[in-house]
Amino acid sequence: MWKEVLSVTFYRAVFSEFLATSIYVFFGLGSVLPWPSALPTILQISITFNLAAATVVHIAWHVSGALLNPAVTLAFLLGSRISFARAACYMVAQLAGGIAGAATLYGVTPEEVHRSFGINTVRSNITSGQAVAVELILTFQLVLCYFASTDRHRNSNSPATFIGMSVALGHLIGIYFTGCSMNPARSFGPAVIVKRFSAHWIFWVGPMAGGMLAALIYNVVLSPDLKSLSQRLAILKGTLDMEAEDPEEAKQSAQPVSLTNVVQ
Amino acid sequence: MWKEVLSVTFYRAVFSEFLATSIYVFFGLGSVLPWPSALPTILQISITFNLAAATVVHIAWHVSGALLNPAVTLAFLLGSRISFARAACYMVAQLAGGIAGAATLYGVTPEEVHRSFGINTVRSNITSGQAVAVELILTFQLVLCYFASTDRHRNSNSPATFIGMSVALGHLIGIYFTGCSMNPARSFGPAVIVKRFSAHWIFWVGPMAGGMLAALIYNVVLSPDLKSLSQRLAILKGTLDMEAEDPEEAKQSAQPVSLTNVVQ
Amino acid sequence: MWKEVLSVTFYRAVFSEFLATSIYVFFGLGSVLPWPSALPTILQISITFNLAAATVVHIAWHVSGALLNPAVTLAFLLGSRISFARAACYMVAQLAGGIAGAATLYGVTPEEVHRSFGINTVRSNITSGQAVAVELILTFQLVLCYFASTDRHRNSNSPATFIGMSVALGHLIGIYFTGCSMNPARSFGPAVIVKRFSAHWIFWVGPMAGGMLAALIYNVVLSPDLKSLSQRLAILKGTLDMEAEDPEEAKQSAQPVSLTNVVQ
Amino acid sequence: MWKEVLSVTFYRAVFSEFLATSIYVFFGLGSVLPWPSALPTILQISITFNLAAATVVHIAWHVSGALLNPAVTLAFLLGSRISFARAACYMVAQLAGGIAGAATLYGVTPEEVHRSFGINTVRSNITSGQAVAVELILTFQLVLCYFASTDRHRNSNSPATFIGMSVALGHLIGIYFTGCSMNPARSFGPAVIVKRFSAHWIFWVGPMAGGMLAALIYNVVLSPDLKSLSQRLAILKGTLDMEAEDPEEAKQSAQPVSLTNVVQ
Repeated sequence: MWKEVLSVTFYRAVFSEFLATSIYVFFGLGSVLPWPSALPTILQISITFNLAAATVVHIAWHVSGALLNPAVTLAFLLGSRISFARAACYMVAQLAGGIAGAATLYGVTPEEVHRSFGINTVRSNITSGQAVAVELILTFQLVLCYFASTDRHRNSNSPATFIGMSVALGHLIGIYFTGCSMNPARSFGPAVIVKRFSAHWIFWVGPMAGGMLAALIYNVVLSPDLKSLSQRLAILKGTLDMEAEDPEEAKQSAQPVSLTNVVQ
Repeated sequence: MWKEVLSVTFYRAVFSEFLATSIYVFFGLGSVLPWPSALPTILQISITFNLAAATVVHIAWHVSGALLNPAVTLAFLLGSRISFARAACYMVAQLAGGIAGAATLYGVTPEEVHRSFGINTVRSNITSGQAVAVELILTFQLVLCYFASTDRHRNSNSPATFIGMSVALGHLIGIYFTGCSMNPARSFGPAVIVKRFSAHWIFWVGPMAGGMLAALIYNVVLSPDLKSLSQRLAILKGTLDMEAEDPEEAKQSAQPVSLTNVVQ
Repeated sequence: MWKEVLSVTFYRAVFSEFLATSIYVFFGLGSVLPWPSALPTILQISITFNLAAATVVHIAWHVSGALLNPAVTLAFLLGSRISFARAACYMVAQLAGGIAGAATLYGVTPEEVHRSFGINTVRSNITSGQAVAVELILTFQLVLCYFASTDRHRNSNSPATFIGMSVALGHLIGIYFTGCSMNPARSFGPAVIVKRFSAHWIFWVGPMAGGMLAALIYNVVLSPDLKSLSQRLAILKGTLDMEAEDPEEAKQSAQPVSLTNVVQ
Repeated sequence: MWKEVLSVTFYRAVFSEFLATSIYVFFGLGSVLPWPSALPTILQISITFNLAAATVVHIAWHVSGALLNPAVTLAFLLGSRISFARAACYMVAQLAGGIAGAATLYGVTPEEVHRSFGINTVRSNITSGQAVAVELILTFQLVLCYFASTDRHRNSNSPATFIGMSVALGHLIGIYFTGCSMNPARSFGPAVIVKRFSAHWIFWVGPMAGGMLAALIYNVVLSPDLKSLSQRLAILKGTLDMEAEDPEEAKQSAQPVSLTNVVQ
């Protein structure tokens, strides 16, 4: 375990998650602010989140896997794709990135557009139960998209466009219900800055539950994982030696580095 | 035939069609609802359908081929790309998925936005004949796009972006005529939920005819299929042993699994 | 020469140009019609043309090269990428496709949205000279994009997305000047249907000049063509035997069929 | 050094930067003009910049690397990816391209839409410090995206779509602050044409600082560069003989030509 955590590539990956999440939250949150000159439309906000996700996934993909999201990170842990230590450090980095992105945006924007600063809130005609259910569904499809994109049997193109599309899809529907979170780090960042946490639990429970359900459906039903129990444990502990386990992978030099490769 | 139907991968594929269609209908239908806070524009609806189709095709592509649509399924059967048993099970799964997606959406949305719940209807100044013709044309280009994307001579990228684009193209024009179906499962789901089936036949006849025409044009004229009659029969019966027939395919491990491969 | 023209693949390619152009014009023109329920915005029209171009290029790319446009066809002839016979037949097929697409749209739309039926016209504050210059520039970037996409040194992905983007780019600016043609077939189709040809020459001279300029700049300056004079003549006459000339190409079976390959 | 500068491919690359930047500025600037018939929305402007960037990167990528932007050029020089001579000539070509694009647009548009001709200006409620900070952040993510796209360990697809997305992302937020520059050539071109340079320094300092910061973060932290000091010096001087240094690269003929390859 310490072998993984003490490596330079591990710290690089954690920094990459921090940086990528902060850029994602800066731009995403920026698109939601009520600029009086031109109020953003739902399509405009959704496309901004699309492009923000695609750009940062494209930037961070080879460095850290570009999870950007505690719900995705939890799902990858459940799917035994990353170690406990990595998941924990990623989540902290993502939440810190969310705060950093929100704080930076706060600093560069005029007072008049701050208002509730883009925090996620449940719309007046939606119940808490509906809000949780919607956030669960939004995140469910996002995490399925993450798994499908990083599956080693898939072709090796960058998943950035698909993850961007999936994020936008969530916003096009989710904005009507909750402003659309799908990502605790995106909700936590602005909530910390403006210190408003009403119904904040929804944006943790919904996405986390959606991520867990997606991990279950994808890895058990859609694309059953053939790794042995000892391999899974080795991944979770961060001790898996990929070269020994899978000599063929090394040959495919043109392919993107998979998350477990990054570990070492 | 029983060999195919009794395999685990077959049930997995059928479940994949159910799940993917339900997500497609949930988000697509969700984009059509008349939210008073911000009525959706035609562009917004079309882009939501684009992203919904692209995301679920990306998720389900390697598991079941992501047909999502009885009209596409019928066309693939006519083009002898899938077996009778598979086509029948896919269609049932797609229709069930359409109902499940619509029912879920109904459950999480407030009463006030239900209205006609996004069912397809012929606009007042359009005749039934025009509606059928338009649905035929919309589905025709979609199914040509499906065939072009899954042709084994084409490059092996995921067809998700192209199918998403083709779905959006249909909506950008079709919404003015019928709300745009292109897919009996998308029309059937909400019609079952709100129990309104007026002119519902149009959304079966138009897409099915468009799919059949596309199967004919693509496989006879544009890209003639060189399979022998016995090979076609074997595919239709689900008894084709792909390894025996095409040993070269097995080498191309980086390529996406074609539909007929999935069969076995 | 007769060898090329008399082959089945040649007629298939000509039909493909006809079909693809008719779909392109049907959807593109459909997006311009002044539906009273929701007048199309410039962005919506541009995105429809984007998706129409991308979808039909994706469908027709391996069959005929998906030129869809007499200006592109002329440029490919000047760049010695296709034979005289092919260029002539493609142009006729494209113009016929434009008429067929426009006629079909006319048949399925109600009288009230016909108006000038989306013909290209010069806006009131624009001079003829400016209109020609703008059409030239719009088509110039489109044809550069075509050449860049079909250059054999480029990577082998389908050019559909890039051609779609380039078409949309032209519309986002060109609609303000002329409604945006970039393609004589798109202008000719509706003009024939409504029999209005005022200033119609602009939509031939502008795109054709833009295509010729792009052929010159791309093949002489940006990416000089190393083919010998006799090779060029052989391509123009349609007698080039690609297998003899370029044995390496045959090995790259995963790559898309280049235009000159299609010939034989 | 003279060996590089005196080669034909070098002049071709410089011309390519000039041409690509002029097309980028022509269309980008054209999207900002206040046409009375339909005022452009922020989404429409952002998408036009997206498509303009993607199209010209697609066209110029194999010829010159398609940097299009003095800030990107400076960042590539700092990351020792291009020589001093190349960087200097590219910057001059980009600025000249910006002027040429703006001048051409000025010539084809009617007087009434000229106004401030799309120059970048700081919005009334934004301080100079905020404007610089925002331009820095916008350019920071763009240059990270450029580095990620051209990294040789990445897959070899054209970076055009990602660079287009990143440009659009900047505009979706940046328009609210400064009209969004991210590129001194885009700001310089129209400023020269209408001779208005108030606060023009912001559109040099912000993007240049953002580019430098991205070069530092990417090459030192995210994806450390393993080139030796002598290799770096050879690249900066333009004397690097790539064939001698990296014999493996020559084999990967299907991959896009990297910038340093273009040199020779």
